[in-house]
Amino acid sequence: MTTSTTFLGLGAMGSALAAATLDAGDRVTVWNRSPERARDLGARGARVAGTVAEAVADDGVIVACLFDHRSVHDVLDPVITRLSGRTVVNLTTSTPDEARELATWADKHGVTYLDGAIMAVPEMIGGPASALFYSGSESAFTDHRDLLDRWGTSTWFGPDAGLASLYDLAMLTGMYTMFAGFLHGAAMVGTAGVPAAEFAARQAPFLAAMTEQLAELAATVDAREYTGPDQQSLRFTDTALSALRRASTDQGVADDLLVPVHDLVRRQIAAGFGAHGTARMFEGLRSSR
Amino acid sequence: MTTSTTFLGLGAMGSALAAATLDAGDRVTVWNRSPERARDLGARGARVAGTVAEAVADDGVIVACLFDHRSVHDVLDPVITRLSGRTVVNLTTSTPDEARELATWADKHGVTYLDGAIMAVPEMIGGPASALFYSGSESAFTDHRDLLDRWGTSTWFGPDAGLASLYDLAMLTGMYTMFAGFLHGAAMVGTAGVPAAEFAARQAPFLAAMTEQLAELAATVDAREYTGPDQQSLRFTDTALSALRRASTDQGVADDLLVPVHDLVRRQIAAGFGAHGTARMFEGLRSSR
Ligand SMILES: NC(=O)c1ccc[n+]([C@@H]2O[C@H](COP(=O)([O-])OP(=O)(O)OC[C@H]3O[C@@H](n4cnc5c(N)ncnc54)[C@H](OP(=O)(O)O)[C@@H]3O)[C@@H](O)[C@H]2O)c1
Ligand SMILES: NC(=O)c1ccc[n+]([C@@H]2O[C@H](COP(=O)([O-])OP(=O)(O)OC[C@H]3O[C@@H](n4cnc5c(N)ncnc54)[C@H](OP(=O)(O)O)[C@@H]3O)[C@@H](O)[C@H]2O)c1
Repeated sequence: MTTSTTFLGLGAMGSALAAATLDAGDRVTVWNRSPERARDLGARGARVAGTVAEAVADDGVIVACLFDHRSVHDVLDPVITRLSGRTVVNLTTSTPDEARELATWADKHGVTYLDGAIMAVPEMIGGPASALFYSGSESAFTDHRDLLDRWGTSTWFGPDAGLASLYDLAMLTGMYTMFAGFLHGAAMVGTAGVPAAEFAARQAPFLAAMTEQLAELAATVDAREYTGPDQQSLRFTDTALSALRRASTDQGVADDLLVPVHDLVRRQIAAGFGAHGTARMFEGLRSSR
Repeated sequence: MTTSTTFLGLGAMGSALAAATLDAGDRVTVWNRSPERARDLGARGARVAGTVAEAVADDGVIVACLFDHRSVHDVLDPVITRLSGRTVVNLTTSTPDEARELATWADKHGVTYLDGAIMAVPEMIGGPASALFYSGSESAFTDHRDLLDRWGTSTWFGPDAGLASLYDLAMLTGMYTMFAGFLHGAAMVGTAGVPAAEFAARQAPFLAAMTEQLAELAATVDAREYTGPDQQSLRFTDTALSALRRASTDQGVADDLLVPVHDLVRRQIAAGFGAHGTARMFEGLRSSR
């Protein structure tokens, strides 16, 4: 409890991480490029550092939660030679290759590197629905598990620093496509005067229920067995997506979001698999390798 | 209980509807173009009709659950002149305009028409998570409410027969984009040897939790107020989607699904709204009207 954890970056997420750590009674040091964002945390008991060098002067874990990969280098490059023997937990969203680059760079400077990805929005941090993925240094993960667990459920995926981020970005694909699809649906019912809030009240529980289908889709994909009797056929989905696109454009809503989904379906049908299950779309996503 | 309900179309869904009705102790008459699909229901006590004319000879409600709009006409056109005074509940997926066409056509023949849309997969029929939307004849909805409630929670949206289907298709947009996004994510982690089933076990609860964000997105869209402090900015989302696409193609996974999502984001940024909330994508979907 005498060691202070350093937080670099106090955007919406960095602030939530630092706040949850303070709430747990830990000592916290914070730094942000624009100093005004540190004010609230300072008032709540965090030590506010004026520079990055000052922020990392202690020997605690350094948590980076910045905008992107480039900003991590912007912030850490000037001080990296002083960080030998220290541990950096980087929670900035990055690609797997970017995380691997940071791990190699940190290693070169004697820095222990743990890459993390946050499966939550700031308001969820510290709550039961918050999950964080880690990869890279296993000892950093086990040694600082108490700290990590303040933010949510922690899982370590392996020593390849890129794995947490690969998992993270894979998870976000479903989220962004779901959000975009929701907005498309809201635009559709909006043409009949239905408020988006009324639509959301139905769409949210429906989509939540539909997530139960993912396990089945996954089993199909893992077995590469697309001919079971309970599978919704590609031909069926083709008809549904055609109806969907026609209904959208009939109502004056752009059908752009559905085009690549429909294309994946139609490519499998064109290849002769119309009677196979819709999960076969998966093969089209991978075939570009 | 003396009146038999007629089911036309015994695909996966029609069979589930007829089975739930039988389970409730009702009398049921079934017909399917390919007779073998009626066998199981016949063994469970349904009266199996050899022709559509025979199937509709009684005076009960006629439930159609066929492939598409065209197949509804294929099946009902030959018998429509005998259906005056009867009620047809059409649960075949159709576009709003197709449902309106059927309502007008039914009305011309003295047939009471209720259009329905099923927000469930066959295994869910009769269970607590199953919801069905209706629009068209209000008296058909109220008079036969007991029957409709055997399949799931029933909601009537209004006399415009196209409304249930508009709502249905709007809901399915979110589902199909979510499923496609999930398969994309599974392809990404698949490149690191992670089975889709392992990914699904994490993706499903994450997406279910993320559905809680839809109410907030909806409130933003309804108020058309995209500048609140808690909104994830378009610029932030642009960075995230760029990382996502880069990570996908780095791993050899096609990023096609993300292109229209990213385009919606970038069009709003190009219009000068980079600091506004990501929900502003909505404006791009509607602007094509
Ligand atoms: N918000 C979420 O829901 C969420 C969820 C999961 C993961 N994440 C990830 O968490 C990270 C931070 O997200 P956020 O929501 O906190 O973003 P944010 O509110 O936009 O904050 C960005 C932070 O990065 C700093 N920054 C940007 N460029 C910098 C540079 N070149 N040098 C120094 N500092 C720089 C900003 O400092 P200034 O204040 O000076 O601009 C700010 O502290 C991102 O990688 C994001 O993908 C966020
Ligand atoms: N399955 C789902 O998860 C689901 C969910 C919501 C809504 N729905 C909707 O429910 C409806 C039925 O779906 P389903 O899953 O039962 O589909 P399905 O298993 O493919 O069955 C299609 C049914 O339509 C019949 N049919 C097709 N064309 C016909 C024609 N020209 N004349 C006569 N009969 C014809 C088929 O008869 P044969 O057996 O002779 O081919 C079969 O009974 C669709 O509109 C679908 O969108 C389905």
